[in-house]
Amino acid sequence: MKEHETILFALPGNEPTVDTIAKRYNVSKGEATIRNFPDGETYIRIHSDVKGKKVVMVCSLDRPDTKLLPLYFLSKTAMELGAKCTCLIAPYLAYMRQDKQFHSGEGITSKYFASFISNFAETITTVDPHLHRYNTLSEIYSVPATVVQAANHISEWIKNNIQNPVLIGPDSESEQWVSEVANNAHAPFIILEKVRHGDRNVKVSIPQIDRYKNHKPVLVDDIISTARTMIETVGHLKNAGMNPPICIGIHAVFAGNAYQDLLNAGAEMVVTTNTISHESNGIDISGLFKSVFNEEK
Amino acid sequence: MKEHETILFALPGNEPTVDTIAKRYNVSKGEATIRNFPDGETYIRIHSDVKGKKVVMVCSLDRPDTKLLPLYFLSKTAMELGAKCTCLIAPYLAYMRQDKQFHSGEGITSKYFASFISNFAETITTVDPHLHRYNTLSEIYSVPATVVQAANHISEWIKNNIQNPVLIGPDSESEQWVSEVANNAHAPFIILEKVRHGDRNVKVSIPQIDRYKNHKPVLVDDIISTARTMIETVGHLKNAGMNPPICIGIHAVFAGNAYQDLLNAGAEMVVTTNTISHESNGIDISGLFKSVFNEEK
Repeated sequence: MKEHETILFALPGNEPTVDTIAKRYNVSKGEATIRNFPDGETYIRIHSDVKGKKVVMVCSLDRPDTKLLPLYFLSKTAMELGAKCTCLIAPYLAYMRQDKQFHSGEGITSKYFASFISNFAETITTVDPHLHRYNTLSEIYSVPATVVQAANHISEWIKNNIQNPVLIGPDSESEQWVSEVANNAHAPFIILEKVRHGDRNVKVSIPQIDRYKNHKPVLVDDIISTARTMIETVGHLKNAGMNPPICIGIHAVFAGNAYQDLLNAGAEMVVTTNTISHESNGIDISGLFKSVFNEEK
Repeated sequence: MKEHETILFALPGNEPTVDTIAKRYNVSKGEATIRNFPDGETYIRIHSDVKGKKVVMVCSLDRPDTKLLPLYFLSKTAMELGAKCTCLIAPYLAYMRQDKQFHSGEGITSKYFASFISNFAETITTVDPHLHRYNTLSEIYSVPATVVQAANHISEWIKNNIQNPVLIGPDSESEQWVSEVANNAHAPFIILEKVRHGDRNVKVSIPQIDRYKNHKPVLVDDIISTARTMIETVGHLKNAGMNPPICIGIHAVFAGNAYQDLLNAGAEMVVTTNTISHESNGIDISGLFKSVFNEEK
């Protein structure tokens, strides 16, 4: 344990996460003022002594464009004040979707974003990044990148909170992850199937539906952004006469009115982890960051 | 003239400036889509052929925090598509104010910002940056930085538009610049004086006031941000019984309601250059960028 050498800073909006992490790992919290001037420029001042210390910055990177410059400034300021290094915990990592040129002339923003962060952060730690065409973050991040997984925390939450659950995967792509969460929760799962009748008539069928009529459906997904997929799936379950489902997401991005839309669509409850601060947070994943604080299990 | 090798791109909001520049220097305009996904991430696609070309990005950097990442992405995408280089015209340059630690622990954001831009722009060209403790931009920008000055354009505008003007400098700091603008406009100028009566009682006096009662006062400043200084100066002129003044600023930052506040305070008219697109723009400074396009005068 070297907690005296580490100091934690919250970027604006990340204070609840930093409080939880600081308590759990017995790490001291640093104080900084990060605010805007009337003209929109960012002012930054670090009040704590960071000399010779490992500075850990906590910044969830949803709505990333306004957050990057303050984060970069915090890192530069800490280094100028003599910090040993600045490491980043980004519970949610942005810009993972544009991982290739889908059309000619497109910027592969995942790479450029990774390159910018790798320029100032000594390491990065994140929860379940949306890896699609990349196998690991090290394909785009040139600094050590640690990925931790929320699946076990979600299984645990289901086991402790839902009676007679059945996990629902919206499509075959989700099968591997949904089956893992289900197995660890000792719960059954079903994957919805698309049945094609001609060119435009695609119906969704729910296998073994009669077996699960009295179960509580639990939808799980990594990111809930516009919530379109989840809202559709909620509709399919409703049409099939199943119980109103519980919707679980790791990352509570919720673009626009997505949260309210999902509730209105018929979700009984929406539960997320605290990778992004949101009223739906119900699953604390701060226990996943122990590697950052050199803790032995 | 090598205009076939140069291609101009407007970052969102800079389209009017780019239109003016493209026409004036006979440079082709590039087409790009730069928009936000529902979750706040930026999407970028360059539709024009940039291979082997000098890409000139035009982005005024008021409200800088949301603009930097799209600008950086545009540069990276152009380079990935084979551009020869990406140069930046930033008619207004941000983060010039925090040029030292006024209090311990403060980040010197001017340096960090410059270092980020120097990482992706091959050159930078800007109009009257707010140089205070730095003598030149090269103290913080590691790429060639060209500074052009709006003073002559302002003098010209005054000569052509104001009958019987007297230029007003709000304090001794402004004297050098105000006197230069005045001389080129063939107009007289006065600098307000602060007279201190005891600790808290500071009065502002207007020298030679009687001589200029029938003149049209013209206030000039580099940046109009909160407009506090200008509003105060307008008040002093009013109290002294002078005519309602014309207020001229190079950079129309106008934080919050500053523009309306300045008009309400008694300015007869507010005129700015087009370094930042704003309804008060009346002075076109696009003629200042000729060095970017290798034009011989």
